Amino acid sequence: MLYEISQRTMELESEGKKIIKLNIGDPDQPTPKEIIEAAFEAMKHGKTKYSFYAGEKTLRTKLASIHNVSAENVIIIPGSKWAFFSIMYLLLKNGGNAVILTPYWTAYEMAAKILGVEIRFLKAEFDSNWKIDIEKLRNLIDQKTRLLILNNPNNPTSKVLENSLLEEIVEVANDKKVTIMSDEVYRDLSFVKTKSTLDFGGSQILVNSFSKTFAMTGWRIGYVVVDKELAGKMMKLNQMTFTNVPVFVQEAALKALELKEKIAGEMKAIYRRRADLACKILSETELKFTKPDAPFYIFPKYANLDSEKFAFDLLDKRVAITPGTSFGDYREHFRIALTMPEEEIKLGLEKICEALE
Amino acid sequence: MLYEISQRTMELESEGKKIIKLNIGDPDQPTPKEIIEAAFEAMKHGKTKYSFYAGEKTLRTKLASIHNVSAENVIIIPGSKWAFFSIMYLLLKNGGNAVILTPYWTAYEMAAKILGVEIRFLKAEFDSNWKIDIEKLRNLIDQKTRLLILNNPNNPTSKVLENSLLEEIVEVANDKKVTIMSDEVYRDLSFVKTKSTLDFGGSQILVNSFSKTFAMTGWRIGYVVVDKELAGKMMKLNQMTFTNVPVFVQEAALKALELKEKIAGEMKAIYRRRADLACKILSETELKFTKPDAPFYIFPKYANLDSEKFAFDLLDKRVAITPGTSFGDYREHFRIALTMPEEEIKLGLEKICEALE
Repeated sequence: MLYEISQRTMELESEGKKIIKLNIGDPDQPTPKEIIEAAFEAMKHGKTKYSFYAGEKTLRTKLASIHNVSAENVIIIPGSKWAFFSIMYLLLKNGGNAVILTPYWTAYEMAAKILGVEIRFLKAEFDSNWKIDIEKLRNLIDQKTRLLILNNPNNPTSKVLENSLLEEIVEVANDKKVTIMSDEVYRDLSFVKTKSTLDFGGSQILVNSFSKTFAMTGWRIGYVVVDKELAGKMMKLNQMTFTNVPVFVQEAALKALELKEKIAGEMKAIYRRRADLACKILSETELKFTKPDAPFYIFPKYANLDSEKFAFDLLDKRVAITPGTSFGDYREHFRIALTMPEEEIKLGLEKICEALE
Repeated sequence: MLYEISQRTMELESEGKKIIKLNIGDPDQPTPKEIIEAAFEAMKHGKTKYSFYAGEKTLRTKLASIHNVSAENVIIIPGSKWAFFSIMYLLLKNGGNAVILTPYWTAYEMAAKILGVEIRFLKAEFDSNWKIDIEKLRNLIDQKTRLLILNNPNNPTSKVLENSLLEEIVEVANDKKVTIMSDEVYRDLSFVKTKSTLDFGGSQILVNSFSKTFAMTGWRIGYVVVDKELAGKMMKLNQMTFTNVPVFVQEAALKALELKEKIAGEMKAIYRRRADLACKILSETELKFTKPDAPFYIFPKYANLDSEKFAFDLLDKRVAITPGTSFGDYREHFRIALTMPEEEIKLGLEKICEALE
C-alpha cells in the first residue's frame, strides 16, 4: 500500500497536481551541493568505468573505520533494499524462515514474498509502548530460523530500542544462532543516543544507506557490514546483477562521509523542529502516538480507523500519508513522514485532523 | 575466467602497474562531456530523489519511439546484466530451461548458474564460419524451454547474424513458443547493417545498454523491451531491489540518445580503424579469426592453445586478454578487446604474437 500511494502520488504530481507528501521518507532537502560537486568532479575525471563489485576501496575503508571492522566486511550496494533482497535470497533460497519485528518497513515483507521466503512476525504495540516481548521472540525462533530483521530507529514509529532491550534481543539471537539483520538507516539522524546492533557482538548484519542522512535517496547507494563469507557471496551476486554502484556515486558518498557531522547535524535540527511542531498539533487531537526518538516519522493511532480507506480519501484532498497496514497488522495507525517544510506539514496535519473529525 | 582476469587486472592497476587491457569491453574513451554535463544539470535541479521503478517517462517514451513500441514496453535497468538475471529469475524460477547460442557472453551462464537455471548450449564454430545449425536448435528446444538467449552482434566473435539466419531462428522460436532474449548492446556500433530480433515479430525480448555506444559502462544504465506482463513483473522486482536507476543517470542517457548519431558515428570510426589495424597484424600470424562485423572484439583461434594458461602467462607480461573458455567450449580461442588506443593495441598484439611463438 505504501508503494501504491507513492506511485499514485508521483502520477498526480506528473499531471501537475500539488500534493502535500507526508507519505514517503524522501527528504525535501536537496542533496548538499558539495556532494553533487564531488560526483561531477569524479565524472569529469573518468570515474565512469566498470569497477570493483564490492565497491571502491577508499569508501569501504572509510566505512570500515567508522564501524570498527575490516574493509573486507563492507559491501557497497545500490540502496538498503538491495541488502534485504539479496541477503534473504542468499541465505534463504534453500529454505528456512526469517523473523521480522513489527511494525516493520514494508520492503522486508515484500522482498520475502517475491522470494517465497517464510516469514514470522513478532508484533509490538503502541499500547505497551512498542515493547518487544523477549519470551515470545524466543518461542517464535525455531531450528529453521536464519534471520531476525529489525529496524532501529524504527520506521514507522521513530522509536529507538533501549540498550537493555537490544542487548536481550542480541542474546536471544546469539543463543539461537540466528543472524540479526539490523536496518539502521535512521541512526545517524537519531535524536537520542542509539547503539548499533554491531556494538553487542555476535554475527550480525548491519544495513545502512546514504539516502536519509544526506538527502541522497535517488542516488541509490548504501552498504552492509557482513562476515567475510557473506561478503564473498554478495560480491558475486553484485557482479551478476548490477556490477557496481557507479564510482562517481561512491565518490559522492565519500564526500558525504567527510561532511557527515555538519550535514547530519543540520538535518537533525530540521527534523527535530518538525517533529516538535507535529507533536504539538497532534497532541491537541484524539490521536495517540509516541513522541519520535528519531526522524522522519510519526505513527499515530486512531480508534476504529480503516487507514487504507483513510489514506485514499486523503489523497483526494491532496495529502498523502501511508496506511498502517503497510507496516504490519496496524489498520488503526497511519504514518506521517515529516519530509516537507514546516508550513506544509502544518497544512497537511490540519487537513488530516479535519478529515478525522 | 573473464571476471577473474578483469579483477586481477584492476588489482594490478591499483598497485600502480601499467597493463595493456585488451580483456574487457570497457571503452577507453571518456563519456562524452555533454552527457556528463546533462547529469550534473539534473543533479543541480534536484533529480536526486526516488522515482518510478520502471524508469522516467521521458526516457521510456524516447526509447519506445526508437523501437516502435509503447513506452509501457520499455523498462530502464542498471545495465544489461540485470536483464539476464532478473528475466531468468522471473521466467525460470519455477523450472524450465534456457537455450544459449555459443559463443556467448559470460554473464548469461553465470546468472543461470547462480539462479540454478538449467541451460543448454548450441555451439557454433569458427571452422563453419560461426553458422548456427537450425535443425540442432530445433532439436535442443523442448517443452520446458522458455528462453533462447542470443547476442547479435556477437561477443566475442563480433559476427553479425545474416538476416535470413536470424529470421529462421525467430521462426523456430515462434514455432516452439520460446521467447528470444536478444542482447543487442553492440548493434548501434555495428560496421554492417544489423537487424534487431524485434524486426521479425513474435514475443521477443530486446536487451540494450548505454554502456558501449556511449562509453557509459560505469553509469549502469540499460533497458529492455518486453511485453506488458513481463514489464509489470520487472517493475515490481526493480522496486524490491534497486528502486530506480538514478534520475540524473537517466537524464544523461536521454542526452546520449539526442546525440546518438554523432557519438555512435565517432565511436564506430575509431573501432573500425582499430579493427583494421588488428586484422592486419593478426593476418601475418598463424592465428585464425573472422574479420569483425562490429566492435569491440576479435576471437582468434590457435591450434592446441590452452587459452586459460596463456591468459594468465600474458598477464605477467602486462597484457590482459580473456581466454576462450569464458565464452563456452573454446579453449583454443582467446578474446581481444579493442578498447585501447591504437598504439597500445599494436604493442599488446605484438606481445601476444611473441608469446605464441
